[in-house]
Amino acid sequence: MSDKVAVLVAGSWGTALASVLAYNGLNVVMWTRKEEQAAEINERHTNGQYLPGTVLAPNLTATTQLGQAVDGAKAVIIVAPSSAARQVAQQLKEYYRKDMLIVHATKGFETESLKRMSTVIAEELDCQEGDIVVLSGPSHAEEVVRRAPTTVVVASLNDKAAAAAQDLFMNSYFRVYTNRDLVGVELAGALKNIIALGAGMSDGLGFGDNAKAALLTRGLAEISRIGVEMGANPLTFAGLAGIGDLVVTATSHHSRNWRAGKLLGEGQPLEEVLESMGMVVEGIRTTKAAHSISLKFGVVMPIAEQLYKVLFEQKDVRTAVEALMGRDPKTEMEVMPLQTWEQWHS
Amino acid sequence: MSDKVAVLVAGSWGTALASVLAYNGLNVVMWTRKEEQAAEINERHTNGQYLPGTVLAPNLTATTQLGQAVDGAKAVIIVAPSSAARQVAQQLKEYYRKDMLIVHATKGFETESLKRMSTVIAEELDCQEGDIVVLSGPSHAEEVVRRAPTTVVVASLNDKAAAAAQDLFMNSYFRVYTNRDLVGVELAGALKNIIALGAGMSDGLGFGDNAKAALLTRGLAEISRIGVEMGANPLTFAGLAGIGDLVVTATSHHSRNWRAGKLLGEGQPLEEVLESMGMVVEGIRTTKAAHSISLKFGVVMPIAEQLYKVLFEQKDVRTAVEALMGRDPKTEMEVMPLQTWEQWHS
Repeated sequence: MSDKVAVLVAGSWGTALASVLAYNGLNVVMWTRKEEQAAEINERHTNGQYLPGTVLAPNLTATTQLGQAVDGAKAVIIVAPSSAARQVAQQLKEYYRKDMLIVHATKGFETESLKRMSTVIAEELDCQEGDIVVLSGPSHAEEVVRRAPTTVVVASLNDKAAAAAQDLFMNSYFRVYTNRDLVGVELAGALKNIIALGAGMSDGLGFGDNAKAALLTRGLAEISRIGVEMGANPLTFAGLAGIGDLVVTATSHHSRNWRAGKLLGEGQPLEEVLESMGMVVEGIRTTKAAHSISLKFGVVMPIAEQLYKVLFEQKDVRTAVEALMGRDPKTEMEVMPLQTWEQWHS
Repeated sequence: MSDKVAVLVAGSWGTALASVLAYNGLNVVMWTRKEEQAAEINERHTNGQYLPGTVLAPNLTATTQLGQAVDGAKAVIIVAPSSAARQVAQQLKEYYRKDMLIVHATKGFETESLKRMSTVIAEELDCQEGDIVVLSGPSHAEEVVRRAPTTVVVASLNDKAAAAAQDLFMNSYFRVYTNRDLVGVELAGALKNIIALGAGMSDGLGFGDNAKAALLTRGLAEISRIGVEMGANPLTFAGLAGIGDLVVTATSHHSRNWRAGKLLGEGQPLEEVLESMGMVVEGIRTTKAAHSISLKFGVVMPIAEQLYKVLFEQKDVRTAVEALMGRDPKTEMEVMPLQTWEQWHS
């Protein structure tokens, strides 16, 4: 069997995942639209804009020709921003073969349709959504390229596909678990970015660890509730793609969602924040999506709602976070996804 | 009704809780065995050893006479180290009245008996364990005294007692939720210190945020599993006393459990670490207790077991943490407290 794997596209997480595959001895080809970036990766073995200071392996190359990237590849890893995933899948269609393993590591929803990434990709490739694998979990790209111990989860309705993805990525510093809850892993990965934004805002406002911990706890309950409404197993939110990813995203300065939230909390206007980041902030798009989802499913999402008002309705950030601190019910169990656990185990 | 509340004893968390009660206008008397400390609190309104830089309110006083502290008090808050709780309750017995609200905020087990704190206190006071209230949650003392937004949970089998405790402590920066799961709140608060120690070790070894997030996720599943065996509601571990407290304890440099773990991870011997801390490190005692509990209940606690070996059997810390990274099952759901959720909701 071919030892070639294609990675689309060459952002920081895509490059980090490509570096894991290259470490595992695979022939890895990244696809990028930027000639200069491809040349930099091939000639200097760096990707300076996204992962400054990292030297890439020689068996990790790049091309601007999608056909060249995926030709003969046994697996294609899609790591595009959520806004670009449909277009990337559309372009991939021409080269797609049924025996190609499709793994995606994109966290977010399609903004207008509110579709999950595996749905979007399956529609464009005209394949079974259940055969697609999602890879998620607590994993800063910067740590993965320096081979710091990292654990992730790969989820698919197709056990063979999940096992194949586990086999591709697993090594001594990158541990991969399987999970059958494709929907839950995708939702947890997307929705936690909202809470990370909120945690950044709390820090930007100068609140402390106590406030942030409360926000994370209630945020996790909030995204679990909506996740279950959308078909997820609530236990997935207690796992690597849920709590694990939430903790790492909301407490680490590597996280662009946390950083964007912090700048907003410090009083910077949204436009300036987006400009200064120079990268996609998925949490901002996801907040918009969650706002629509909460209306569509009739589920209360207090944190997402306040963030939506800050991001899109010019609500003062301090007033919004204070509103969150103030609106709590009096008993803790009121906020827990109690019924949902029952649902899943009845 | 009296507006007097006694706080036993005057460590950092006791003093922080006393400062909340004083802010709420109550007449707060702390009990300490140290003449010098009492004099410092009464004359200079500081408690420099435990909360340097903090100025205490004039309606917060201290005494070395226990009878004087609790005489006429409507509530007694016990915030002793777990190793001293029985002795404090024993001494309190002489002054205890049935109409006195007993709240404790001690995290840990009695080492030999493995009893929870409310059991120990009830035995000594000869009162109903169900009437005792436990206060827990993500709450660094240092932040509480500077009135940073904080949320905690008060749990009791007696709803009136829980409501009375909520009423005593609640204010604009200190939000208090009630919960009926006394056992779960006590267990979560005690057991999470083990995971905080482990997180500190991971940081001390130079592992990154990815590794720590994985450790927290699996640690939470581990303490939930044993908690349920001991009679807790698993949802409590998803709340403030569980995830919330775990996040704040394991990711913040305020935490003495995290700091002790970090020093151990950096290679310092246990004796030196304990000496340099100058304060009680509950997580170390709790690790010993958890080791006995896992034997008694026949529940596997891989993280607690490795930490036990490091602390009490001179196992090399890197070997122990690497053993943890290596022993994972292949599917994520294997580590989840699945049956336990069923148990609780059937």
